Order: sequence, then structure tokens, then C-alpha cells
Amino acid sequence: MAPPRLYLDWNATAPLHPAAREAIMRAIDVFGNPNSVHGEGRAARAAIEGARRKVALLTGADPANVIFTSGATEAANMVLTPEFNMGRTPLKLGRLYFSAVEHLAVREGGRFPKDSTTEIPVTEAGVVDLNALAALLEVHDKSTGLPVVAIMLVNNDTGIVQPVEEAARIAHAHGGLFIVDAVQAAGRLPIEIERIGADFMIISSHKIGGPKGAGALIARGEALMPKALIRGGGQEKGHRSGTQNSLALIGFGAAAEAALENLGERNAAIAALRDRLEAGMRAAAPDVIIHGLGGPRVANTIFFTLPCLKAETGQIAFDLEGVALSAGSACSSGKVGESHVLAAMGRDAKLGALRISLGFSTTDEDIDRAIAAFGKIACRRRSAGEAA
Amino acid sequence: MAPPRLYLDWNATAPLHPAAREAIMRAIDVFGNPNSVHGEGRAARAAIEGARRKVALLTGADPANVIFTSGATEAANMVLTPEFNMGRTPLKLGRLYFSAVEHLAVREGGRFPKDSTTEIPVTEAGVVDLNALAALLEVHDKSTGLPVVAIMLVNNDTGIVQPVEEAARIAHAHGGLFIVDAVQAAGRLPIEIERIGADFMIISSHKIGGPKGAGALIARGEALMPKALIRGGGQEKGHRSGTQNSLALIGFGAAAEAALENLGERNAAIAALRDRLEAGMRAAAPDVIIHGLGGPRVANTIFFTLPCLKAETGQIAFDLEGVALSAGSACSSGKVGESHVLAAMGRDAKLGALRISLGFSTTDEDIDRAIAAFGKIACRRRSAGEAA
Repeated sequence: MAPPRLYLDWNATAPLHPAAREAIMRAIDVFGNPNSVHGEGRAARAAIEGARRKVALLTGADPANVIFTSGATEAANMVLTPEFNMGRTPLKLGRLYFSAVEHLAVREGGRFPKDSTTEIPVTEAGVVDLNALAALLEVHDKSTGLPVVAIMLVNNDTGIVQPVEEAARIAHAHGGLFIVDAVQAAGRLPIEIERIGADFMIISSHKIGGPKGAGALIARGEALMPKALIRGGGQEKGHRSGTQNSLALIGFGAAAEAALENLGERNAAIAALRDRLEAGMRAAAPDVIIHGLGGPRVANTIFFTLPCLKAETGQIAFDLEGVALSAGSACSSGKVGESHVLAAMGRDAKLGALRISLGFSTTDEDIDRAIAAFGKIACRRRSAGEAA
Repeated sequence: MAPPRLYLDWNATAPLHPAAREAIMRAIDVFGNPNSVHGEGRAARAAIEGARRKVALLTGADPANVIFTSGATEAANMVLTPEFNMGRTPLKLGRLYFSAVEHLAVREGGRFPKDSTTEIPVTEAGVVDLNALAALLEVHDKSTGLPVVAIMLVNNDTGIVQPVEEAARIAHAHGGLFIVDAVQAAGRLPIEIERIGADFMIISSHKIGGPKGAGALIARGEALMPKALIRGGGQEKGHRSGTQNSLALIGFGAAAEAALENLGERNAAIAALRDRLEAGMRAAAPDVIIHGLGGPRVANTIFFTLPCLKAETGQIAFDLEGVALSAGSACSSGKVGESHVLAAMGRDAKLGALRISLGFSTTDEDIDRAIAAFGKIACRRRSAGEAA
């Protein structure tokens, strides 16, 4: 009989939060086109505007500055463009600077040509090198347009919290824009856009327990906006055309509300679970390497390498034990390659690393099971090594 | 007491089809990231691949050539680009030709600069002028790249069926590509991509009773593809990055299956309802103008003008009677402007027109109520006219 499943891959996607599930169930027959002026349309419109206010609360933004998209990747492609408008006046951005540990949705550079992007190195601790950022912006060629800097608040693999407030100050001191990918931070840290000092922020519904197919680009103000990526009927004030995905947005709103409520106590509880799991892992395999211990981490993520165990092999072994975890980002369509995050941190990326990520419903029993599975796999690896 | 609602705006969006609703309810706890390799990921992947096969069946395509998007508008923006790849070889398109009655999602031209787009006129009957198309392509400047022609199969306002097979032949004879917006045709007419002769086809989930937030770009083959609009993790074989909206896609698949089943009998029944409604409208207001009677129409749409009644006013009047219908496309975020479709047909666009659109669950009683509401409003208009 297959073992019961234990889901420890919350950074890839979260199970639907009960509040989001309930909101979807309640709204499933709200079918009107939110852009229709009749009663059915107005009902749908009211529902998505309610969701917009909830997402605004989570991000400390004005609801007017929340642009709904189909997800974080679309939001990244929307905002990462050399072509902006300040009101109706075109504003040209010359070069995109992003950290070496950004998600592929940012690393691909959106609408910037590849030769107009520059990688900002990270330290061995996995933290963006702010001196390097300052040095890069110092020599930025303003004749090509202003610089734009994109740095994630929390790395999806390591869970390391990046110094985005300082990075924002550096970007602004050089007359640049600052964009924060807050996808993995939402619900785990406060993400008020003003406090961070970001000009734009990106979040995703399904990483915080909302349904897939929804995300948002949050702007600090209304005046400066990227040229629309998706044009047509002029929805979302012309910034993003296409009928809004009302059911997913309603779930997104409910998840955003829950994420805000869960910020304090629940995250402290998750940190305790994480600490116990790490202690158990070390006891079972003293040679385990936990990446990113040098930097501040969010509570839920453990990124680790077991010497002599390839991440791909490890992932399958855990899956067979009923434990879902991942070998790096799930986004490359099932492909498991070398970890660009490990490489950026100067580690040997060949062996790869495994990521355990906990969530709001992770229990004490889950941690016991995870430790047991880890012990079994670590032990088997050692015997295999001895036999070889 | 407010009258019970009667929804006659199916071209704006359709209520969730029972099959789609059931599929969503069944799948609501399938939460894995379809790109994760563990069990939860594989379950989500299997579900969306099942949906892909159903959408492929509806469109007569190879499932490998169905690219899921967040909707038809995104699909249009994806395919309307001067930059294509034939395998790995870039292929440049020089100019986009679209009909004067296309949806805004096409009329905005996607990634084509405005001065690289040309409108193809329509006849007074609202049908694309094929002679004009041929004449335009005759003088197309091939030094700028190949031409691409985009024509909708069914107009969203008038319901008029466009001669896309002939247009495809003309486009191909001039070495061009041919793109069909089949959003309003799906579930109402057969839309096999090979039979139409299109290189690409666009469809939407929520117009056929699936949830919002899903659509597809269908390609005739695998070799020739537009440069990706949304880049990142490389999902959808690199053609469209971002975690797939699995729940919506599962509903889309179920709706596609139902749409295919409903093609025959149910559409004949809808045509009979439409005919009875038109007869009732004429009896109540002999001066009513039904647009597009000159061309072949799908069964469900009536686009009409009542002399002396502005469309905006009429829409509100119907809404107060409990009847949801629309004054042109719902896509312009509630704005009601002059109808570009009427203008293209050479009609006076100032007064506008109202659109009634029926769907699979429209009943005989609905038609009685619609006739009664129409009679009341037409009569009130006359008295108001006499009083003025």
C-alpha cells in the first residue's frame, strides 16, 4: 500500500486555503462579465473589487494601484519593460539589473533585450551584494535610459530574506526604479510597498493558498506605469486587457486576507516546526548541509544537500516515501537542471539541493514523518556509498 | 420586488456549464503544481493534459499544438506579433491585416506597431470584403516581411459568420499566415482548424461555459510559433510561462467537451428560439432593425436597433425589467461608446445597437419574457417619442 501523502512543497504551490476554498464555493455561480453594465456584471465587478481591496490590504497599497494579472509571471513580464509611461509621457528605461538568485520569471528579463540586462551577484550566504549593486549603478549609462532594479524579497529556494529596503534606496539614489518580487514573502513577512520603498511589487495567488491563475502587479502610485503587455478591451484601466478571472480573484482575495491574519503567530509556530525538523535532520545525518543559514530566512523553508545524494534521486526517494518536496523550482516544466541559486552562492551546483517548505497546515506529526523519511533516505545513501 | 433575472448576454460570458461546474467541484482539491515531479504535481499535470485533449478534439487539433493561456485576449496578443520562429529560425512578419469588425483584442494589433496594421473593410451586410483583402495583399510590401491576416469566424456583436476558408486561401496564396478568432464560434459551429485552413486559432473558455481565466492558442503545426509573450519558467513548452491555471483548465476541458456535444441539435433548437424571438420583436415594433440579416448568422445572436432608443438607455431599461443584454462588447470596462461594428457596416453608429444572445439553457419561457420586455420598452419609447 502506498504511504499517505505528506506535502512539504509549499513554495511550489500551496493547497487551497480553507478560506479561499469557501470563497470559491460561495462564488461559483457568480458568472457575470465584470465589465458588463447589467446586474450580473455589476455583481461580478463588486466581487472582484472586494478581492482587490483585500490584496491592497496585504500589500499596504491603494486598491487603485492593484492590477490583477493571470499570475506572477505575467506581472513580471508586464513590469519588466524598457517602455513606461509617466501619465501620458513615455519614459524609457535603459537597463534591467536583477540578482543572480531571482526566479526565472524575472531572470528572463521580460521585454528587455538580453543584452540590456545585468546580473547582480550574491554573497556566499545567498544575500544580494549591495556593494556590487551600487558599483553597477555607478557606471550605468543614463543615455540609454534610467536603470531598473529587480530583487526578490524572499528567495524561493533558500528562503533567504533579501535586503530590499537598502536596495531600494540605492536604486532610487541612482534615479532608478525598484521592483520587488514578493511572491515567496507574501503571508510570511510584512510586505507593505511603502515600507519596502518599492515602485512595483509582484505577488501570486497560488503561493498563499489562493487558486492558480491569479496574481497582481502592485504599483506605488498611479502615474508611472509600464506599457501594457496584453492589450484589447481595456480592462484593469487599460493596463491589462482581457476579462478578469473573477472566480480565481475572489479566491485570491480570501487567501490574501488569511495570509495577513497568519503573519504573526502562525509563522512563529512554523519556525518552531522548521527548527525541530532541522535538528532532526542533523541528528540523522550530521553531514547534511543546510544552505543559507548565514542569512535571515523565512520560517518555512529548508534548502539542503545530502552529500553523495543527487537532488533528483533524493526527490524521487522522498516521493516514494510519500513525501512531496522539490529539487529547486518547479517552474521549469519538470526539468531538473543545475541549481542557479547554488551556483550563484559559489556552491558546487552539480549535486543540487532539495527544498522542504512548510505551510500553514503543517503539523507536529508531519515533522515526525519528515524526520523519519529523511533518516531512512540518509541512511540508505550511506549504505549505498559503503557498498560502492 | 425586483423581477427575476433573465440572462440574454451569452456572448459577453456564459454561465458555468453544469459539466464544467461539476469538473471544477471534483477537482477543487487537486492542488499540485503541474510542473512538479512528485505525485501531487503529476496528478495536476494529468488533469490539465486531459483538458488539453478535450480542447484539441473541439478544434480538430493535435493536443501537442494546444497552448493554454489565461484567455483569448492573451492568446491574441501572443500570436499577433511580427516575430515568429520556424523551428529555431526567426521569421519576420511585416504587416497585420484585420477586419474592421474584429474584437478589440485583435484590433489593438498585439505586438505590431500601429503603423504596421491595416483594416480590411466589410460589406454593408457585415461580411469581410474578400476582394478588398485580395487587393490589399496584392500590394503588400514583402520586403517588410510576410503578411498576416486575422479574421474572426463569428462576429461577437452581429453573430455574422465570416468567410474564413476563402480568406485563408487568399492569405496563403499571398504567402501569408492566417489567424482565426473562433471565440464566438466555438460550440456554435464546427471549428476544425484544418478545415478552416487557419495557421492559428484562438478560443476562450468562459464563452463556452467554462470558467474565466482560460483560453488557448491552437496551432496547425508545431514548427511555426510566435515569439513567447510571457517568458519565465518555460511552461507550455516554452511558449507560455507561468504555472498553469489547472482548475480553470479542467473546467475549460469539460466545457469544450460539452460544446462539441451541443453542436448539432441544441443549436438547431436555439435557432428556433431566436426565430420566434425575432418574430415577436417585429410584431411588437415593426420598425426594429435587425442587423446582419444579409449574411449567414450563428443561431444565438440578435443585434438590433430600435429607432429613437439609444442603446445605452435601452440596456438600462432591459436591466430594470430583469433582462441582461448588452450594448456592444462588454470588454471596454463598462464604457459604452459608438459601435465600431455598426460604423464598419456603414450604419449610423450614433444610436448604437443592442445585442441579445442566447445560450444552451435558454428556454421557451425565456423567449416569452424577452418578447414581453421588448414590447414594453418599444412601446414606452414610442409614447416618449410622441410626447416629445
